[in-house]
Amino acid sequence: MPSPTLPALIEALRRLPGVGQKTASRMAYHLLQHDREGAQLLAQALQQAASRMRHCALCHTFTEDEVCETCRNPQRDRSKLCVVETPADQAAVERTGAFRGLYFVLMGKLSPLDGIGPKDIGLSTLFERATAGEVQEVILATNFTAEGEATAHVIGEALKARGLKVTRLARGVPAGSELEYVDLGTIAHALVDRR
Amino acid sequence: MPSPTLPALIEALRRLPGVGQKTASRMAYHLLQHDREGAQLLAQALQQAASRMRHCALCHTFTEDEVCETCRNPQRDRSKLCVVETPADQAAVERTGAFRGLYFVLMGKLSPLDGIGPKDIGLSTLFERATAGEVQEVILATNFTAEGEATAHVIGEALKARGLKVTRLARGVPAGSELEYVDLGTIAHALVDRR
Ligand SMILES: [Zn+2]
Ligand SMILES: [Zn+2]
Repeated sequence: MPSPTLPALIEALRRLPGVGQKTASRMAYHLLQHDREGAQLLAQALQQAASRMRHCALCHTFTEDEVCETCRNPQRDRSKLCVVETPADQAAVERTGAFRGLYFVLMGKLSPLDGIGPKDIGLSTLFERATAGEVQEVILATNFTAEGEATAHVIGEALKARGLKVTRLARGVPAGSELEYVDLGTIAHALVDRR
Repeated sequence: MPSPTLPALIEALRRLPGVGQKTASRMAYHLLQHDREGAQLLAQALQQAASRMRHCALCHTFTEDEVCETCRNPQRDRSKLCVVETPADQAAVERTGAFRGLYFVLMGKLSPLDGIGPKDIGLSTLFERATAGEVQEVILATNFTAEGEATAHVIGEALKARGLKVTRLARGVPAGSELEYVDLGTIAHALVDRR
């Protein structure tokens, strides 16, 4: 390569998950050849996200503040706590408009094979928050995958043992699918039919 | 989404070729959750590449200078000009160590269906350079795809009409391969091009 800037860019693009040498090269050439504006835009977005984003002290989702906007919202029903795996799942539930409570975002799911245990998804914080007195019902909205179901089971058992009302999104959501990509009507129905 | 920084990052990642909403989300969460350093590094590499990289005035490849390092190298044989589609193809030829001449990088290929014509791949610059007196032989090293072959044909005919010696990379059986497993078209071409 004639210039060190190009290999450096290709190397940096390989930090993205699922991007190998060949894809990284194609991306670099595309941006330089056809979309400099996109490259500048992406640089800025990465810079801002990496420096500004942190985790909400209450719900663990990504936020730029100590406590996120949703958790600060006085209009939200503080007696209901919806547990989701990721901010994208939270956004999917939000888009239905069928839930006015608060969230706890695990930022992952239990996955013993990948070495992801209760500590990595903040379960002790969740249990503390759920049993502090304000929360009346915990709605488990982890994905309907094997790992999501196992995570819901572990959380559900622990919270029931602490005397809490625990519900799970109804099976209106097709098994094996990820919430982020499920149509809004299905999610809304599953919320209403929660058991 | 609780913060505009995250959707902005996902939107910016979608500018990368082959990256849709789902992949962009996964990339954003991965960087924020597991690789902030990678995000910073990529931001910097993009910023530098987008602001510094331009095209070599002689060969059109990406460079940070007016004329690239290869074109400036006094050790290179200025009588031979190798025409390739991309800087990656140029790098592949370089790695063989079998070519000491100079290059012309089309930064694309003729593709009428995509609206890419002679002007978009700098053919008038190439013809000017090839006929300026120094170049004795033009080696067409475009890819052996339908579009690469068509591009080589157009360039070859034009340069031959201008009295230049034009050659094409030999088609043939890849080194180290067994005939039994080589596709028929390749064997047929290798037969025609036998030397
Ligand atoms: Zn929050
Ligand atoms: Zn050059």
